[in-house]
Order: sequence, then C-alpha cells, then structure tokens
Amino acid sequence: MGENGEIVIEEANNNPYNKIPVEASGRHIHLSQEDMDSLFGQGYEMTVVKELSQPGQYQYKERVTLIGPKGTIQRVAILGPVRGRTQIEISLTDAVVLGIKPPIRESGDLDGAEALFVSTPRNVLKVEEGVIVAKRHIHMTEEDAKKLNVKDKDIVKVKINSKRPVIFEEVVVRANKNYKLSMHIDYDEANAVALEKETYGEILY
Amino acid sequence: MGENGEIVIEEANNNPYNKIPVEASGRHIHLSQEDMDSLFGQGYEMTVVKELSQPGQYQYKERVTLIGPKGTIQRVAILGPVRGRTQIEISLTDAVVLGIKPPIRESGDLDGAEALFVSTPRNVLKVEEGVIVAKRHIHMTEEDAKKLNVKDKDIVKVKINSKRPVIFEEVVVRANKNYKLSMHIDYDEANAVALEKETYGEILY
Repeated sequence: MGENGEIVIEEANNNPYNKIPVEASGRHIHLSQEDMDSLFGQGYEMTVVKELSQPGQYQYKERVTLIGPKGTIQRVAILGPVRGRTQIEISLTDAVVLGIKPPIRESGDLDGAEALFVSTPRNVLKVEEGVIVAKRHIHMTEEDAKKLNVKDKDIVKVKINSKRPVIFEEVVVRANKNYKLSMHIDYDEANAVALEKETYGEILY
Repeated sequence: MGENGEIVIEEANNNPYNKIPVEASGRHIHLSQEDMDSLFGQGYEMTVVKELSQPGQYQYKERVTLIGPKGTIQRVAILGPVRGRTQIEISLTDAVVLGIKPPIRESGDLDGAEALFVSTPRNVLKVEEGVIVAKRHIHMTEEDAKKLNVKDKDIVKVKINSKRPVIFEEVVVRANKNYKLSMHIDYDEANAVALEKETYGEILY
C-alpha cells in the first residue's frame, strides 16, 4: 500500500484481479421442501437439467407459473437445492406484468416481502412473504475479497465496461468459500447496460 | 470559475440548476406522412390525446402493432408531429420479444437500423431501416446548457438519485431552444434505477 491515497487508488485500479465477470439472473424461484411437496407431490423426484455458475446450485427441468393480481408469467425456473423458505426473485418489469410491488432486497431478507400465487399442473399455493427484486451483488471467495481489498457485506461501486457503460452504486459484496467470482444483476439492469457475453465489471475505489 | 480544478468541481457540484428531472420513454413510433397515409388512409384525421413533456410533441389516440420474426407487441404509441422518416424506438427487452437486434443510437441516426413490420387494422408495412434503442440523453435549452456548463452533443455522466442509484455514462446532451430540461431513459434503464416520480439526475463533472 502506498503512503498516500492517490497511490493506493492507482494500485487498486491496476489490480489485475479487478475484472469481475457479470451475469444476468433471470426470474426464478427457490422452493422450501414443504412447498415443493405441495406443488409436485410428496416423494416426487425433481430432474436437474443444469449446473449454475455458483457451485452446488442447479436448475430443475420442472417449471412453475407465477400468478399475480394483474397477470401471470409461465415457465419460471426452479433453482435447487431446497431452502428453508420459498423465495421468488423477479425484475421490476416482471413486477409490472404481475401487478405487485416487491421490495429490492438481498436474498433471504423476506419479512414483509410481496405475495404471489405459484402454480403447477398439480396444485396452486400462495407464497405470503417471498417475492423480492434481488439487490445487485458480487459473489466471491474470501480469497477473492482479499485480492480485491473488500470484505463480506461491503457496499461498493462497480463500473460495467459494456456498449452502454454504467456505474452501479450500492452493490453488495457476498464473500463465502463456496462462491465463485461473479457479479449478478437482473434482466432490467442487464438490458440497461446492453450486457453481452464476456462483459466485466470493475470495482471503483 | 476558480483558479484550480478542485474549486471548479466544487462550484459545479453546488450548482442549484444541476437537478435534472428524469423521465422514462416507453416504446413508440414516429411516422412519416407517407407511412401514416399507408397505415391509416390518405386524408385520415389522427386524434391527439396527450401533450408530451417536450414542447410541440404529442401522442395520438391511434396505436400500431409491431411484428417481428419472433413476436409481436400491440398497442404501441404513435408520437407526433410527422417526421421525414419513420422511426421506431424500443427497449432491449422489447427487442428480445420481437426477435430483432436494433442498434443503440441517437434519434434520427437510422442508416443500417433494424427492420420491423408495422400494422393497423387497415394495412401492414415494412419499415426497412427504422428501429433503434434510443441512446439516453438530456433535452435542454441553450440557456440550461450554459447554466449546466455543457453544450449540445456533449457526452456527460449523470448520477441518478433513486432507491437503486446508478451513474449513467455516455449520456448525450441535446440543447435546442425548443426543448425542456428532462433526461430521457428507456424502461430497462428506468427499472434498473427503480425510477419513481420526482426522480432527479445530477451531471458529474
């Protein structure tokens, strides 16, 4: 680290690790075991079709329909493994289609979140407090965090180097040994920056 | 103006005029007289339903349908007055629905732009080079420009002070005596910043 602020900033901006892959998260649902049983039947065996970029996370072949007061969205992805509580993550564009006003929250922060009906060919259930718009965030290991000079729960600014460049403020750092370095934004944010494959973000210090 | 850079920046950031109303532009079409005649019939009298924020611009009651290779979008607004050339402005979300890849361009820059079919109950026509995603921009008078220390065609950064704060880079200044101070972003960008009524942007110097 240099002796004054400018040198530190220069070092940070030349940090070769400061090149974070950016991914768009589509709308999806995480189900509790209870809700999975209710929607698909107890003992039903879900089929995994795809591993996700975060280790240990995957997508099932099965889908659900979201039913809001104003509209429905079909063929919504279910991500595994099961969670303690059902969580639905949608974009603000989806929220307008469905006719609800979910809060912008971090994953797992569901108290007072919005309600939606979720259906399968077998059943319909109401998720009372479970719908959020995910706050943009960066997954990384604790090693990555050290290299990037940040720590878990830090709020950082990230410049997206794309055709439609944007600096996202208030991006949450989520450091955990099970994560892989990746910034997650939703489809509204992805379209706002005209995200393409191989787009990278850079933390601004 | 101060004697060194820092003082100038401080003055700019304290500039009370640096509070720009931000508006979301929905998808819309501007028609040439020829295409209007073709879609509605020669001599047809269009009905104005709404004045827009930019002086002399208005919306008609009539609507069109956009027909792309993958999907259609109904009830698309037509803005007046007529223009020399038909121009369709959509979001990247719309582009995915329609199945086309329009360039991100300034209004009027249509050479090589995307194609779409446009229909009314009376006719369907193909707009060969007319579909763009509008580049975010700020309308202002030349007086506003002076107060904000910018000029027509400048490219600036704008911080949006919203619940989901973002700094938009590469924002085009469009200064003209007929304009009213307003930053225009599309619905993807509006949702990315969680735009609400009375949201303001601030030019960063």
